[in-house]
Amino acid sequence: MRMQEYSSRQQHRQTLREGGRLPDGFQIAVSSLQFVPEERPSTNPFTMNLSLILADEPCTSFGLSLTKNRIPGAPITRARAVLNAESLQGILINNRVANVCTETGVEDAGDILAHLGAELGLDSSVLLSSSTGIIGWRLPVEPMKAALPGLVAQLGHDSMLAVAESIMTTDSFPKLRRIELGGGSIVGVAKGAGMIEPNMATMLAFILTDFDVPREVLREELAAAVSASFNRISVDGDQSTSDMVVALASGRRQRPDPREFGEALRLICRQLAEDVVRNGEGTRHVLRTTVSGAESELQAVAVAKAVVNSPLVKTALYGNDPNVGRIIAAVGDYCGNHDIAIDSHNVKLSIGEESVFFAGSFHLDKAKELRLSHYLQSTELLPDNTAGLEYPPHEMCVEVVIDLGLGSAAATVYGSDLSDEYVRINADYRT
Amino acid sequence: MRMQEYSSRQQHRQTLREGGRLPDGFQIAVSSLQFVPEERPSTNPFTMNLSLILADEPCTSFGLSLTKNRIPGAPITRARAVLNAESLQGILINNRVANVCTETGVEDAGDILAHLGAELGLDSSVLLSSSTGIIGWRLPVEPMKAALPGLVAQLGHDSMLAVAESIMTTDSFPKLRRIELGGGSIVGVAKGAGMIEPNMATMLAFILTDFDVPREVLREELAAAVSASFNRISVDGDQSTSDMVVALASGRRQRPDPREFGEALRLICRQLAEDVVRNGEGTRHVLRTTVSGAESELQAVAVAKAVVNSPLVKTALYGNDPNVGRIIAAVGDYCGNHDIAIDSHNVKLSIGEESVFFAGSFHLDKAKELRLSHYLQSTELLPDNTAGLEYPPHEMCVEVVIDLGLGSAAATVYGSDLSDEYVRINADYRT
Repeated sequence: MRMQEYSSRQQHRQTLREGGRLPDGFQIAVSSLQFVPEERPSTNPFTMNLSLILADEPCTSFGLSLTKNRIPGAPITRARAVLNAESLQGILINNRVANVCTETGVEDAGDILAHLGAELGLDSSVLLSSSTGIIGWRLPVEPMKAALPGLVAQLGHDSMLAVAESIMTTDSFPKLRRIELGGGSIVGVAKGAGMIEPNMATMLAFILTDFDVPREVLREELAAAVSASFNRISVDGDQSTSDMVVALASGRRQRPDPREFGEALRLICRQLAEDVVRNGEGTRHVLRTTVSGAESELQAVAVAKAVVNSPLVKTALYGNDPNVGRIIAAVGDYCGNHDIAIDSHNVKLSIGEESVFFAGSFHLDKAKELRLSHYLQSTELLPDNTAGLEYPPHEMCVEVVIDLGLGSAAATVYGSDLSDEYVRINADYRT
Repeated sequence: MRMQEYSSRQQHRQTLREGGRLPDGFQIAVSSLQFVPEERPSTNPFTMNLSLILADEPCTSFGLSLTKNRIPGAPITRARAVLNAESLQGILINNRVANVCTETGVEDAGDILAHLGAELGLDSSVLLSSSTGIIGWRLPVEPMKAALPGLVAQLGHDSMLAVAESIMTTDSFPKLRRIELGGGSIVGVAKGAGMIEPNMATMLAFILTDFDVPREVLREELAAAVSASFNRISVDGDQSTSDMVVALASGRRQRPDPREFGEALRLICRQLAEDVVRNGEGTRHVLRTTVSGAESELQAVAVAKAVVNSPLVKTALYGNDPNVGRIIAAVGDYCGNHDIAIDSHNVKLSIGEESVFFAGSFHLDKAKELRLSHYLQSTELLPDNTAGLEYPPHEMCVEVVIDLGLGSAAATVYGSDLSDEYVRINADYRT
């Protein structure tokens, strides 16, 4: 499934629905419930979506990539314990409440999964929970348990689009990617629009395949794919408590060529990661920053993240203002603070096709500034501020290329601009 | 001069005007000019303010604290060369264009200072330039040179308030602090509202004293004061290319007690640094974050900066939403990415008077959430979004206290919230 330019929300959803056909050996279900949070002084109930991904048999081949946040959510704590288990069969996902650091968080998750196991006739040790939403609030345990029989009754072969939609919080569109390869397929969905600077995995992503991939191959390829995709994006520099990528292989289709499988997995992860940025809260431009001439790949990633996370770079981008000085300031700032001995005479910066900094100084004129402004306008996700973005109309990025002039390592990082819509969404997130 | 609660812009300005009485041995002048930038496709001229601070005699006692940005502006390059000079007598300051990395930036500054020296009958080696504004554009050299005779003609003993106002860019109010001590005084002004995460100094600050302070004492005390003040604030995490703090001592009053002088200098710097945050672009809350229980002071500063720079913490604050989960997420994120082995069971968080996280979990209830919301409302700089903030009505901060439970070091960092006004200001900065 190649991304294309969509002309309407309907066309976008239809493409995702078709791309979401389940690999052999899996079922899904989605449902929702209402609850009143204990912590919130309000009588208006909140809606929570539940999703269930279930393999027909226990999958001995599974992979997990988890947040490095030192104060993680209860689902992460449980997932860490499951890493070395013999098999994994199902994942229960909820949005709205992230289940992080409540007094009873781990017990609550265990309680809900035990009920789910009883409904399914499975030992709950083969089940994971995955939660996204508000940090610090308690899961509505009783309403969730009450909703489980209805959820299980929904299990079937509907498109994974239903899961991609059900796990959304502030996301404005669902994110789903498919690759077919020989006789099998890989289908991935992701959730995420804010608190996005994953380090190990993005907010939530679930990848299913029917290929017979040995566990060790799956884990190795997943780690490589996550490192080159979800770990190379940032919407706001905030690494969540709850990031989790789960990959499940049902083994129904014959063993794929490992190199081809790895490439397909990396492509799926990179596409989903780009989708997450493209759907960043209030995002109107995707910023693709490549740093070359670095001493190491880690250094290239760090400098690129310094650029894509600079609020001043992000706001200029939002205003379609090619304020290139802020990019150079961000590079100089990071290098100065981290003892990276760049020499401004060897640093180069280009934006789109325009070379704007080299030989120690800016090279700007009226005509170039105008071309840069037009370039920024042309890469906007929507040409005006009026409509909500319910589908991504194109895949264009603002291309920023920086050469540090130090070495031969390079890396590319995706980020987004900073709009007043981002501020509004995040000022009002819990209301 | 103690800060107080002002009831009007007039009262604020009057207090600053009185506080801006010059220490003995100094004169100032301000002026403005119009120019059309070479780089900007516009026929509307821009206005640039010029300020001149001049000592009656060359000051052998002076101190400089300069940005660590690796791609600094031309005034920084020149100031580095002046650090070991015998004396310093004057500083020419312009706003609007920062003179960073243009092809002729260093020569342009030298050319302008040579003309200023000729007007004053001084060798230009005792003069510094200091510039703030747009990065990458060339100074309007000829209009600036043409304005110098008029500027010099203005030299006199007007209040430093004129300088504080003249150096503003996106600042919404001037920043000036005074301390009297024995028979002499210290008067400081600062500029800065955006691109504020100084590391060595804030955007621009100029501190004058008539005390007879030996150069080495002045420099030592200035370094200590800058480290504990300007280097402990962040509006947006962007360290400018052009940060500069200059201290000049005319030596007219008798040598002060070094301890008292140091304390006064630290207080002036801390007050000016707080003013800069309070005047952050679009700032509606000042966030004062103290991290204790750290293994080192550097670690405490780094964790506190991670909290005050988190866009999600900043936007929640703007919305008066006590979304305490984001603070804990930011702490866990930073510690996870920097191998700081905190144990969530030993981490404590309080906001205002409320303890919200300890023993590994959040402790929230409806009543506490309501009290926290009211607390955030009460610390807002303005109660509504309608009016521009032309003076700081109070000095209240949102007090966040975090105990990492690791060691005995502590540090306090000042930050600000993130509003849609910030985004608007920075999307439109060059138009």
